[in-house]
Amino acid sequence: MKLYMTERSGNAYKPRLLLAMLNVPYEKVVLDFPKKEHKQPPYLKINPRGQVPALEDDGHVFWGSTACLVHIARKHGSEKWLPTDPAGMAQVMQWLELAQNEIHYGLQWARGVMNKIKTGNLEEYQGYGKTGLEVLEGRLRNNQWLALGRPTIADVACYPYVAVAAEGGLKLEAYPGVTAWLKRFEALPGWVKRV
Amino acid sequence: MKLYMTERSGNAYKPRLLLAMLNVPYEKVVLDFPKKEHKQPPYLKINPRGQVPALEDDGHVFWGSTACLVHIARKHGSEKWLPTDPAGMAQVMQWLELAQNEIHYGLQWARGVMNKIKTGNLEEYQGYGKTGLEVLEGRLRNNQWLALGRPTIADVACYPYVAVAAEGGLKLEAYPGVTAWLKRFEALPGWVKRV
Repeated sequence: MKLYMTERSGNAYKPRLLLAMLNVPYEKVVLDFPKKEHKQPPYLKINPRGQVPALEDDGHVFWGSTACLVHIARKHGSEKWLPTDPAGMAQVMQWLELAQNEIHYGLQWARGVMNKIKTGNLEEYQGYGKTGLEVLEGRLRNNQWLALGRPTIADVACYPYVAVAAEGGLKLEAYPGVTAWLKRFEALPGWVKRV
Repeated sequence: MKLYMTERSGNAYKPRLLLAMLNVPYEKVVLDFPKKEHKQPPYLKINPRGQVPALEDDGHVFWGSTACLVHIARKHGSEKWLPTDPAGMAQVMQWLELAQNEIHYGLQWARGVMNKIKTGNLEEYQGYGKTGLEVLEGRLRNNQWLALGRPTIADVACYPYVAVAAEGGLKLEAYPGVTAWLKRFEALPGWVKRV
């Protein structure tokens, strides 16, 4: 199994976390982000979207963090990290969707603007990010984990950019359920630092 | 099964299409979009993100188009519309991810700006949308369907906003694989018009 990634990418951090938690060995292919290797033809053959992560396994390439998480969870995580019953799977999916929406073009883009790696409307992105944090807090105020009574790929998908929300100007102090969940997540066996 | 929706929402159109194609009866709960009913407390209890669609079934509520599609496909579509083997499921998921990214904040947002229901940087959104269309074209030039050799929820998720890409200023003439796929999709048994 080969993971195309950069060390700093929060999206590539998602499969890295799950692989570490499941103790699955894999080969890291680290792209040169400053040289825009992810936007050059050789890599675009692997992932036409020009982003990391992508995962090569069993003769297939899967691009995008959700596809990577789903492949790893289904192959190595049994039903624990991604159940296949209709209600359980849909409950996991709704948080993966939050990760792709309010967390991505909210928290992540706000951080991108503040870190000067992206241009755009900071206030708009912070507004989406705030909605995302409120939705997370609504769940985590009275629950330990996002989708089910145990950690799933929903938690893995939401964690990386929530953990660095402050870099986008959104303070986590107002969200005690979220901050407690971040600590709980970081205490899981196999958890690794991003860089 | 109750579907919270508006008639015009492309995201709500996704589960409506799948329910129609699978011939599953359901109750429509149509929200008053101009009166912002989707942003008022009674609905926010159902979907804290303040968006449509949401699906109520078996004592659960699932919000977001991906979660709705996954629930319906797993409950009523057997392995056909969403397989559960690691590679098959991940191949479907990568297109659901495109639908949540380049199609959503590309095609959909560009259309939103041009239809004056959203503010923002039209050129930026069109740029993302163009990437999305190119990725779709790369697949559909030599394949009939997005994820596998048959229609899956990947096609259902990508179809609604690609079908109206021209409203966001992106002409589909340059993408013959995509336009042929749109026609193929519209010929599937059970296909319904949005409005």
